[in-house]
Amino acid sequence: MRVNGVPTRTIWADSQAARVFIIDQTLLPHRYEIAMLASVADAVRAISDMLVRGAPLIGAAAAYGVALAMASDARDDSLDSACARLAATRPTAVNLRWALGEMRAALAALPVSARRDAAFDHAARIADEDVARNAAIGDHGLALLRSLAERKAGRLNILTHCNAGWLATVDWGTATAPIYKAHDSGLDLHVFVDETRPRNQGASLTAWELAQHGVPHTLIVDNAGGHLMQRGGVDVVIVGADRVTANGDVCNKIGTYLKALAAHDNGIPFYAAVPSPTMDFTLASGKDIPIEERGAREVTHLSGETEDGRIETILIAPTATPAANPAFDVTPARLVTGLITERGVIAAETSALAAVFPDLARG
Amino acid sequence: MRVNGVPTRTIWADSQAARVFIIDQTLLPHRYEIAMLASVADAVRAISDMLVRGAPLIGAAAAYGVALAMASDARDDSLDSACARLAATRPTAVNLRWALGEMRAALAALPVSARRDAAFDHAARIADEDVARNAAIGDHGLALLRSLAERKAGRLNILTHCNAGWLATVDWGTATAPIYKAHDSGLDLHVFVDETRPRNQGASLTAWELAQHGVPHTLIVDNAGGHLMQRGGVDVVIVGADRVTANGDVCNKIGTYLKALAAHDNGIPFYAAVPSPTMDFTLASGKDIPIEERGAREVTHLSGETEDGRIETILIAPTATPAANPAFDVTPARLVTGLITERGVIAAETSALAAVFPDLARG
Repeated sequence: MRVNGVPTRTIWADSQAARVFIIDQTLLPHRYEIAMLASVADAVRAISDMLVRGAPLIGAAAAYGVALAMASDARDDSLDSACARLAATRPTAVNLRWALGEMRAALAALPVSARRDAAFDHAARIADEDVARNAAIGDHGLALLRSLAERKAGRLNILTHCNAGWLATVDWGTATAPIYKAHDSGLDLHVFVDETRPRNQGASLTAWELAQHGVPHTLIVDNAGGHLMQRGGVDVVIVGADRVTANGDVCNKIGTYLKALAAHDNGIPFYAAVPSPTMDFTLASGKDIPIEERGAREVTHLSGETEDGRIETILIAPTATPAANPAFDVTPARLVTGLITERGVIAAETSALAAVFPDLARG
Repeated sequence: MRVNGVPTRTIWADSQAARVFIIDQTLLPHRYEIAMLASVADAVRAISDMLVRGAPLIGAAAAYGVALAMASDARDDSLDSACARLAATRPTAVNLRWALGEMRAALAALPVSARRDAAFDHAARIADEDVARNAAIGDHGLALLRSLAERKAGRLNILTHCNAGWLATVDWGTATAPIYKAHDSGLDLHVFVDETRPRNQGASLTAWELAQHGVPHTLIVDNAGGHLMQRGGVDVVIVGADRVTANGDVCNKIGTYLKALAAHDNGIPFYAAVPSPTMDFTLASGKDIPIEERGAREVTHLSGETEDGRIETILIAPTATPAANPAFDVTPARLVTGLITERGVIAAETSALAAVFPDLARG
């Protein structure tokens, strides 16, 4: 999407020079800086330190990390070592392991001399496939937003939670793909952005990317969405997903469940945008999903920019107070109006999902 | 309640010296400082600048403000001027106007020479009445918590939102009164404290007062409560209220509605602690309550303490991003298990409320 008016992806490569470029997302929304990755060590650091984040983007970055390794040494040991180092960066990231598996499968059988170019080609293909999948989600979601817009007068109000935006992917995003497609096609829309405590991905990333692309939006605290729905301020909720189980339960950033409850209580459609790699047909329901408990410091401390331009970290609680920090919650399928996938909008239920994704459902 | 082990109220007076003392709540949780008020101007500033906040405490502070005015000049002009200046500090505070009306009624008919002592006496009575009302709420809530504790093994987990604590009142608090009574009586309990964005009264005030009184508690982001309820971590929700309408709808800090939805979805009792001055029988339902929209800066900026002990304010959003900031929401009576009042625990419905508060319901 656009940054300072320029169409941009979150990751791109100069394969001749063996250089990969990313947006350093740790600096957003206060600074926009491009970081250059010249080695697998750089790629490992970029993923570990969360310069890149979001499952699809992590997958693409890992793929390019393997390509950087091949550019300096394309022998088997180097391939093995690169995959191992990259896999260790984010232990729970499904896309990361998937992308590394793809790269290894594509490269291992090739002669060493062919691996460098093949690696950059294959990483580019992984990135392009993500873009295509999200664009398809965007097209299906666009049709949905158009039909909602036809039923009301004035601007369509969309609420989203966390960052399932293009910054979490290579381009388009998942939850944001329908929004960008609709905005670009001239649909009059406005987005309420949940700040998404504790890590504030809504305030720092979603708000930034919508602002850069020129999409009208308003930041709200996570507490405000229910009230806005009660007073008619929200027409549709679209969120992303970290994992969707066979029955359509949606595991997503903590707080998503509360918005789904409020949408349901007010008769507002609630959609999750779900690319197929996010579906997990090995789990029957969301009850089985272990929820990551993250550090207390994410709750008790916040970083931001001071009036005079310094980045500071502040404590907002008593020093004696402990904090709990569950990172995700599960929205039961009964609260989900539909799943926007690259193959269309699907009911959040076992049979519907199995019918549209028989290849995945068979496992 | 206790601060550094010492039983403390939020406001107290030395009537001989005509001095009033308050906790400067703007400095919490990072500094505990007592501020001295020696004039009506000091009292006006303390309320305007939110050194004291919370409807009951504002009422008591205004009453003492009138007493300070009487100590320097007890003539009619001084009484009129003090009431007018104090009334202008927080335009929407119901208790403020009520307390000033009480003071004026008690003083206007007295000879000027008797007003000083009568004013301090009457302000003390207003403060004591608040304490007695909250203590009664605490006793009724204690019985309720005891019966919940009997039905489960192990520690009772209570979730609360915002600060309906003793810092918002003269002592005990409203939502916290049952918690303090239960804790002091030896009931094994633990409190999940919603941080309560945007102003973070949970993180800065509720967590602080629970920590000072020695009540086990854990700070969570507002997004986390629904997930904790889904996984069995919460036994009961107790919140305060800014206004309760004749049908039992509860207007309270933004985000309360979302917790009520989650409690309802998980079969968890949801109570609002409501002293009678918070009831508004002139409104049939919460749909009629205008919701205050506060400044965007409360959403986009946060204050806290840096590692080296400075208080800093930071921006957490892009500068181009606008923010909306509705301060309250309305929880429909259908989601409220009961109202804990000084006259007992009452069903949130018109007939039950009118039966217990016939004096107020008649208007």
